[in-house]
Amino acid sequence: MEKKTAVVLLSGGLDSTTALAVARRDGFDIHALSFTYGQLHTVELEAARRVAAHFGVEQHTILDLPLASLGGSALTGHGEVPKDRENLDGEGIPVTYVPARNTIFLSYALAICEVTGATDIYIGVSHVDYSGYPDCRPEFIEAFEALANRATRIGVEGGHITIHAPVMELDKGETIRLGLSLGVDYSMTHTCYDPHEDGTACGRCDSCLLRLRGFAQAGVEDPVAYRERQ
Amino acid sequence: MEKKTAVVLLSGGLDSTTALAVARRDGFDIHALSFTYGQLHTVELEAARRVAAHFGVEQHTILDLPLASLGGSALTGHGEVPKDRENLDGEGIPVTYVPARNTIFLSYALAICEVTGATDIYIGVSHVDYSGYPDCRPEFIEAFEALANRATRIGVEGGHITIHAPVMELDKGETIRLGLSLGVDYSMTHTCYDPHEDGTACGRCDSCLLRLRGFAQAGVEDPVAYRERQ
Repeated sequence: MEKKTAVVLLSGGLDSTTALAVARRDGFDIHALSFTYGQLHTVELEAARRVAAHFGVEQHTILDLPLASLGGSALTGHGEVPKDRENLDGEGIPVTYVPARNTIFLSYALAICEVTGATDIYIGVSHVDYSGYPDCRPEFIEAFEALANRATRIGVEGGHITIHAPVMELDKGETIRLGLSLGVDYSMTHTCYDPHEDGTACGRCDSCLLRLRGFAQAGVEDPVAYRERQ
Repeated sequence: MEKKTAVVLLSGGLDSTTALAVARRDGFDIHALSFTYGQLHTVELEAARRVAAHFGVEQHTILDLPLASLGGSALTGHGEVPKDRENLDGEGIPVTYVPARNTIFLSYALAICEVTGATDIYIGVSHVDYSGYPDCRPEFIEAFEALANRATRIGVEGGHITIHAPVMELDKGETIRLGLSLGVDYSMTHTCYDPHEDGTACGRCDSCLLRLRGFAQAGVEDPVAYRERQ
């Protein structure tokens, strides 16, 4: 019997890499989907390629999106990436939030489903660690799944598209433990919002701080190098 | 009092131009949003620019999207655009359907809302003329509006994003009459799926045939030239 294929949003970060490992465990062939969309994150793409190669994904599509020209986020070069924040779990939406990013990413995944016939999409969002991002919440994923089944040939013709968010309810430590149990080598991943020119993580942005806290929670050492913590 | 701004999806075709005229009538400043995404449609962009200039839109964003590389549609160069079809209102999804296109387009409109604070989006879809396109139906628009209010800072912080589809219930003839009543000059618009090199409409694709039928229904002459009907 032919295996079913899942479209997996793969940034090359810790969460999306873990989501990919879960999709593999769930028995899917993998169509990974990565994006380039701004000047700060191209080093992520190298990580995505390493992860895709490591897991031997069946297909990897990389799309260049015009998000930077929309502005509105420190992650696409509009404003400074904050460093050394103490209250990582505070209220409010961080300046690193990219407007409508996950909606846009999932829309392209949906287009791939329409073209290939895949009916499963994996996305590595968690509302535990990213409570300030509207598009990392369970109600967002539910609303997108409802949309997906009204927007597509698959949905209209009686199929069902499922959006899987396997790390939604996990904190970073739990995500890391899950990934390790599935054979993830986190040295392949990249997390930093503001890496140095050689790609080394800064160790001070929200994303690095959450990652480092996650490895501490999991009780294992983070295998990636940090420039400012050496 | 400062006027509110609406984001208007503007392809330069008949429906989106009419939707823009309605947004203007409704009292909005206009942030037009157009896309390039394949080899067949660049002539549309010139039409979009003409329409934007004619209506003096306050802002016009043009984004280049990687839809052609996804495949799956005759509109992005994958297969032939059908000609001289007799059953324009038949069952099924035409080969010119671009997978998840309106979901992707609306996602970018949503990003602009997040960046600028706009809470109104206009889209010129009609389920009367395009019954075969899943993403031209009222239930799609309702599902996207529900998503929009869960996906965004605006929605989370108590605002409300509204998706307006002012020609949804109109056939092409009614759309044209509405546009004419609002001062639309349809000679500026471009509709053809398969224009000649100089931009002249073919007069034979589904889109041309629907347009010509619409002008016949409205009892007025179509001001654009058709290569194969001269």
